[in-house]
Amino acid sequence: MNSKVVLVVLVVPLVTIIALACVLLTRQDGSSQPARCPSVSPSAQPWTHPGHSQLFADLSPEELTAVMSFLTQQLGPGLVDAAHARPSDNCVFSVELQLPSKAAALAHLDGGGPPPAREALAIVFFGRQPQPNVSELVVGPLPRPSYVRDVTVEHHGGPVPYHRRPILGAEFAQMWKHLKEVELPKAPIFLATVLNYNGSTLAPLGATPSGLRSGDRATWIALYHNVSGLGIFLHPVGLELLLDHRALDTARWAVQQVFYLGHYYADLGQLEREFKAGQIEVVQVPVPKSNGPSSLRFQVSPGPLPPLQFSPQGPQYNVQGNLVASPLWTFTFGHGVFSGMRIFDVRFKGERVAYEVSVQECLTVYGADSPKTMMTRYLDSSYGLGRNSRGLVRGVDCPYQATMVDIHVLAGRGTVQLLPGAVCVFEETQGLPLRRHHNYIETHFYGGLASSALVVRSVSSVGNYDYIWDFVFYPNGALEGRVHATGFINTAFLNGGAESLLFGNRVGERVLGAVHTHAFHFKLDLDVAGLKNWAVAEDVVFKPVAAPWSPEHHLQRPQLTRQVLRREDSAAFSWGSPLPRYVYLASNQTNAWGHQRGYRIQLRSPPGIHVPLESDMERALSWGRYQLVVTQRKEKESQSSSIYYQNDIWTPTMAFADFINNETLLGEDLVAWVTASFLHIPQAEDVPNTVTVGNRVGFLLQPYNFFDEDPSIFSPGSVYFERGQDAGLCSVNPVACTPHLAACVPDLPLFSYTGL
Amino acid sequence: MNSKVVLVVLVVPLVTIIALACVLLTRQDGSSQPARCPSVSPSAQPWTHPGHSQLFADLSPEELTAVMSFLTQQLGPGLVDAAHARPSDNCVFSVELQLPSKAAALAHLDGGGPPPAREALAIVFFGRQPQPNVSELVVGPLPRPSYVRDVTVEHHGGPVPYHRRPILGAEFAQMWKHLKEVELPKAPIFLATVLNYNGSTLAPLGATPSGLRSGDRATWIALYHNVSGLGIFLHPVGLELLLDHRALDTARWAVQQVFYLGHYYADLGQLEREFKAGQIEVVQVPVPKSNGPSSLRFQVSPGPLPPLQFSPQGPQYNVQGNLVASPLWTFTFGHGVFSGMRIFDVRFKGERVAYEVSVQECLTVYGADSPKTMMTRYLDSSYGLGRNSRGLVRGVDCPYQATMVDIHVLAGRGTVQLLPGAVCVFEETQGLPLRRHHNYIETHFYGGLASSALVVRSVSSVGNYDYIWDFVFYPNGALEGRVHATGFINTAFLNGGAESLLFGNRVGERVLGAVHTHAFHFKLDLDVAGLKNWAVAEDVVFKPVAAPWSPEHHLQRPQLTRQVLRREDSAAFSWGSPLPRYVYLASNQTNAWGHQRGYRIQLRSPPGIHVPLESDMERALSWGRYQLVVTQRKEKESQSSSIYYQNDIWTPTMAFADFINNETLLGEDLVAWVTASFLHIPQAEDVPNTVTVGNRVGFLLQPYNFFDEDPSIFSPGSVYFERGQDAGLCSVNPVACTPHLAACVPDLPLFSYTGL
Repeated sequence: MNSKVVLVVLVVPLVTIIALACVLLTRQDGSSQPARCPSVSPSAQPWTHPGHSQLFADLSPEELTAVMSFLTQQLGPGLVDAAHARPSDNCVFSVELQLPSKAAALAHLDGGGPPPAREALAIVFFGRQPQPNVSELVVGPLPRPSYVRDVTVEHHGGPVPYHRRPILGAEFAQMWKHLKEVELPKAPIFLATVLNYNGSTLAPLGATPSGLRSGDRATWIALYHNVSGLGIFLHPVGLELLLDHRALDTARWAVQQVFYLGHYYADLGQLEREFKAGQIEVVQVPVPKSNGPSSLRFQVSPGPLPPLQFSPQGPQYNVQGNLVASPLWTFTFGHGVFSGMRIFDVRFKGERVAYEVSVQECLTVYGADSPKTMMTRYLDSSYGLGRNSRGLVRGVDCPYQATMVDIHVLAGRGTVQLLPGAVCVFEETQGLPLRRHHNYIETHFYGGLASSALVVRSVSSVGNYDYIWDFVFYPNGALEGRVHATGFINTAFLNGGAESLLFGNRVGERVLGAVHTHAFHFKLDLDVAGLKNWAVAEDVVFKPVAAPWSPEHHLQRPQLTRQVLRREDSAAFSWGSPLPRYVYLASNQTNAWGHQRGYRIQLRSPPGIHVPLESDMERALSWGRYQLVVTQRKEKESQSSSIYYQNDIWTPTMAFADFINNETLLGEDLVAWVTASFLHIPQAEDVPNTVTVGNRVGFLLQPYNFFDEDPSIFSPGSVYFERGQDAGLCSVNPVACTPHLAACVPDLPLFSYTGL
Repeated sequence: MNSKVVLVVLVVPLVTIIALACVLLTRQDGSSQPARCPSVSPSAQPWTHPGHSQLFADLSPEELTAVMSFLTQQLGPGLVDAAHARPSDNCVFSVELQLPSKAAALAHLDGGGPPPAREALAIVFFGRQPQPNVSELVVGPLPRPSYVRDVTVEHHGGPVPYHRRPILGAEFAQMWKHLKEVELPKAPIFLATVLNYNGSTLAPLGATPSGLRSGDRATWIALYHNVSGLGIFLHPVGLELLLDHRALDTARWAVQQVFYLGHYYADLGQLEREFKAGQIEVVQVPVPKSNGPSSLRFQVSPGPLPPLQFSPQGPQYNVQGNLVASPLWTFTFGHGVFSGMRIFDVRFKGERVAYEVSVQECLTVYGADSPKTMMTRYLDSSYGLGRNSRGLVRGVDCPYQATMVDIHVLAGRGTVQLLPGAVCVFEETQGLPLRRHHNYIETHFYGGLASSALVVRSVSSVGNYDYIWDFVFYPNGALEGRVHATGFINTAFLNGGAESLLFGNRVGERVLGAVHTHAFHFKLDLDVAGLKNWAVAEDVVFKPVAAPWSPEHHLQRPQLTRQVLRREDSAAFSWGSPLPRYVYLASNQTNAWGHQRGYRIQLRSPPGIHVPLESDMERALSWGRYQLVVTQRKEKESQSSSIYYQNDIWTPTMAFADFINNETLLGEDLVAWVTASFLHIPQAEDVPNTVTVGNRVGFLLQPYNFFDEDPSIFSPGSVYFERGQDAGLCSVNPVACTPHLAACVPDLPLFSYTGL
């Protein structure tokens, strides 16, 4: 039976002036336009940020431009714009914020000292010199640079060989140009007859790493049908080419192998000859239709809107540049051009709980029977998780009323690129109580608080996949990091035969959805009530105990185990070893009840899957061995991965596993490193896109005896009423004021999007 | 930098008549009242339910009353209302729907046969007879019963001894009366001096099971300070009493032991004597203040509303009685009086995917050094997960605009009890894309769909804890079951000394938050494209492979393993054994790509924790051993737990583990049983209430090659636009219509609540 709405006499709400504002607007507005809800919370002012956190803000367009000008001046006229640089050129690959040292930052933030110099980190490809290399240069001080310092050796223990450089967009364009102009013409009849190639209907996707050993730069490139508006990823045609592009002179590039339907050929000429001679079996692949199953175009007319979220009294946060402040939380967000989203100086009620929480790496490892796919181990930081954070669509990527923030990056081209609205900040209403209790023992009362959280989000579209990165801030002091995977799957041509299906499911006529793993690495530089922290593990064991009042009977009773993780080696939990159910970082401060103030780290990941230790690539991915590691924080151990691993995965200059060298964790500044991962066996329902449902992993940080009680008790939305009270009265029960307070038209911005 | 709203010329939306309705209302309404959004979706009509599912609807008040009248008639004048029955009386404990057999239900639903007789299951306590017992009686047909059938032996393999009956509210009241009137007067000075007892300031909480071996009915009862409006659970005073209440004559009840501050006494008289003689140490416990930390009363003034969710064009579902229908999903929900929330005949796009998905049991196992707490293993089905589903508060427990539905139960008293608004149904907007892709390879386009889901929720408040049960229905065919734990923790008096802290954290002056486990058991009777199903496990192994184009180099390549789980024993995954990463139930039907149509079962639970097999209670809880089990479906194996275990946990008549007897799973009607569990070490932040953040577990069912592509592609909210298109035009991009379509005042019901 449906509930009946009981009509209750409504009195004027007692609540606040804010509350009245909306109602009065409605009453006084004589026009036919309904009153709009306010767009800014009247109480926004108090949440100004402590003010120092521009230390961590991404470089502004002006700063990026100033660095480029300075470098151009310093490095001379030979510098070419990376957008069209050849391998034999010098070019600036990227410019981004050089993070200050933590000591310098804290001396300023907490010690009141002067801010450390604001600096940029520029990565420069020196192709135009006898010993080509990659150099990392620190440029400062901003905004008017006057010095440049080569930090390559400091960062990497030696020079970075040129072959380790990430593949520029320009290089990939040159590779495709080479294939199109030099190689494809060797098989005109095969391509036209079998693949329906007309000069523009094919597009390349490359595997990385590019080769099989250090020094290689030979990339397997698979061809896919290219139809405007379709994701090419779902349209393999079965042809793959191994292009050696190591030579700095592109004229010396050459195809080394060709793969078609399970067979290898020396080049396309051989394939063409054998095809014309009728010696090979072929599979005709029609050019896909533009509204076929791989299309994201809508198949049905738009219908009614889904539920919409809006803030009747304006948002309860504000965003100033990269600073976000709410009544409870303040933090700075930013993007490493490569490493992706990160937040700094995260404070709850003014107290710092984390210095840095950041994405480190995003790895996929594929299996298939085609060479391009079996080679693929994408290290997405090399492609750039930050620079691929493209404009978000309000109403789909974020709640419609979210605050959209631009990003500026300089990478892969010599000019600043605006990524409009690539970050959104919003309050997430969860339609769920944060806490509640309905009491019927002795007294009858109800108390609760609706759950809502502050979210900052960006989405990295790295080729086929879209990774949705969220940091979520709860009113109880919890901080969540989570990533959802969506976008297109990678596919290989289905050669046929049961063996192909060892590597995934068939998801189209001749399409194999290739099995792969996803793994994400996060750095959690927590400062729990100060820098000096301890790592503690707690769990439970059942112990038999004689019932004290009846000793002939035994009970199995749970009791705690508690272990201080004294050294790094004891705080490195590989996927095979059981993780204690409670792991937390603790301070030597205690709460009112005498417990060490702590923050608990909870993993939200299915049991992990990592490449075998025997793999010659494993060392570069060694963070993937562990579900959780706690280490001493060191400036030298600031990142767990490197953009240079993608193209030289066999000889990492530093491996994450080396961070774990049994140093003490007692009373040190600690960093927790978390891996979240899952297996993806693509299925029919991954077409057109993988859904986010079920594809979420991450971590949760919760206060653990950090406070004396749940701090959400001081949240203004709490509800409490007792039997005998009229809960329908706004004066008794704030939630009963909702119809009044929300009696206005949502203030929604007009839609615009310039991110394509 | 904040994003700028780019002003775009807006054209009249092309969308639908529904869309225009809201706008036109706004324009034509000349009064100062803003136009209201419609409260009912104009397209609600088509989602009528197939029509047969009242088979599974809870008994109506009329049906319940008819059964009670019939039983009163049949069982004679000796029947007493359970609300005030003595142990030596006969009374009807409960009446609820007797589920039809699946064969009979399907013969009707799918075979077009007549509906099976609608029947009730009544549980009767026969205390007033030489051999007291509990009997289970089927009464039918409804609505006008004419027969009664004793099914006790059929259900339990024999008679149910009287001592196994759940403790009636009336019995607990009699126990407290006995303590208050007979026992507490033995220690007036101790109670007044040490515990500030004035005759009403103490209240009892009992442990179950009641005893140490089969046949016992002796309950440890701890006393707590009782202040109106406070949760008594946080106010232990240190005094506990063991009351033997086995005798049917309450005059023969007696306290067997008394526990105070680590010491045991024969009775309160002994305690009083030793106290007066100054022989024992005591701890003064002041009566707590009514606005202290355990209060849920708000500590700060109400502030601005958090974000509110509303459906600008009306909800996209309807609820008729227990039937819910949306454009994609239909199902019937209901409540087992004891077992709790369940859904039946769940169909996606008209095709049944589950016959039944239900909660089975909810277990907590505590540790402490006090006898009441160390004894506690609450099996909440015995208390009644359904009958304790109390009225929900819109705006806190559910989104404000949710549809609230009443429940009627008959349990523990002889009359029908209305639980007003104890279920809510709503669309959950997730502020997240269900899927999206931003494409910049070859062509530039964006496609996506906002995620929203249909949710049915109830909350069981069983004493201290509140369990929020959700079934969530996604537009891609996924179905989620989840439970959040909130409410008050159980506490014990902190005796002091480090040993107490072996069992939890101190959370108040003399309060120990007692360590405990939570475990939840779910039954998933899936019918994947028919009744005949197979259970399949897939996972990945890395295998070394010589690179075919360069055999001197090796790759570690992931490839699938696939195993049909042929027998029940191979499909029983205990917590110790690794669960294959993909487990699904499959049909012998295939999708367009030749794969068996399947539904994947994903667990969302940290690694489980179960009482040791050596425990003499373990067999009754044996479902807790397994994270996942697949069994042949049998009417005789319809439930994994029993309400009779709580009071005789040592001799279960059937144990779930016995369901697993190596029967074939090949092409059978299969049931998957899922356990979700977590460890809870209470912490300061559990005061006043445990938060839902981080306390969610459950399962997810996802189509796995069940379709030929993602069915959400046919959802009306899809968005697609390309570079060069003006995405700000409503005609191009439906999400751009949002400001128009939502330009109305949310239609919110007035708040009312009658559930206390």
